[in-house]
Amino acid sequence: MEIAFLEAEQAAAGGEVPVGAVIADSSGAVISRAGNRVLTLKDPTAHAEMLAIRDAARILGSERLIGCDLYVTLEPCAMCAQAISFARIRRLYYGAEDIKGGGVRYGARVFSHATCHHKPDIYAGFSEQRASRLLKDFFKSRR
Amino acid sequence: MEIAFLEAEQAAAGGEVPVGAVIADSSGAVISRAGNRVLTLKDPTAHAEMLAIRDAARILGSERLIGCDLYVTLEPCAMCAQAISFARIRRLYYGAEDIKGGGVRYGARVFSHATCHHKPDIYAGFSEQRASRLLKDFFKSRR
Repeated sequence: MEIAFLEAEQAAAGGEVPVGAVIADSSGAVISRAGNRVLTLKDPTAHAEMLAIRDAARILGSERLIGCDLYVTLEPCAMCAQAISFARIRRLYYGAEDIKGGGVRYGARVFSHATCHHKPDIYAGFSEQRASRLLKDFFKSRR
Repeated sequence: MEIAFLEAEQAAAGGEVPVGAVIADSSGAVISRAGNRVLTLKDPTAHAEMLAIRDAARILGSERLIGCDLYVTLEPCAMCAQAISFARIRRLYYGAEDIKGGGVRYGARVFSHATCHHKPDIYAGFSEQRASRLLKDFFKSRR
């Protein structure tokens, strides 16, 4: 999760909403890491989780990241949650909840529907204060 | 929509679940087109809609596809629906409904939540029989 925070801080430094993600294999070794890069890449799908998943799939040569875990500083949105399901991520660890944009506990609650084929084990609230402070400071600085 | 079907048929020929998508600007000119390429690219996020959105954003040089419309042969999943929202797609036209995997009318119903910032105008049921026959034939041939 520490690496995810570093990615989030780097994203903020680049003017992006500060969210960072890391994918590790079942032994805990980091496979991929990314910060949010929607503005930099001019790509509406370039959330930290999506970039990390795509990188890990490329590195492992498979569209399924069996046994892999994803660490992300903020509750994933519906897009990322569905991608996490498709990628067969084993465990999802996230920092702050996202009442406005989240798609796991809030909003679309992607994993809670009967049609969701794969639901990771979910561990929420990691370094929650640090994660939400990072976001609050970022949005305050932009006002 | 005809181009979307051609993309879906090409996807099927490549062993992919047959779904195709097209993005057009407000004058109807095609900006991008793509078929599902999850297996070919070994990328769990490589749905037709995602590839078309990313291509269009690259071509237009913006993460927001203001005034653009998306045509897709199948009801988008939650991942694609949320990406459609982020991309500010104006109108979403889709073919067959997807009771098992859809995220618009079924499942996570991404656009139906108060926290969804942008909802396109939605037109469903275009060439529905053709779209569902394409999928049924594909899955029958794989059994």
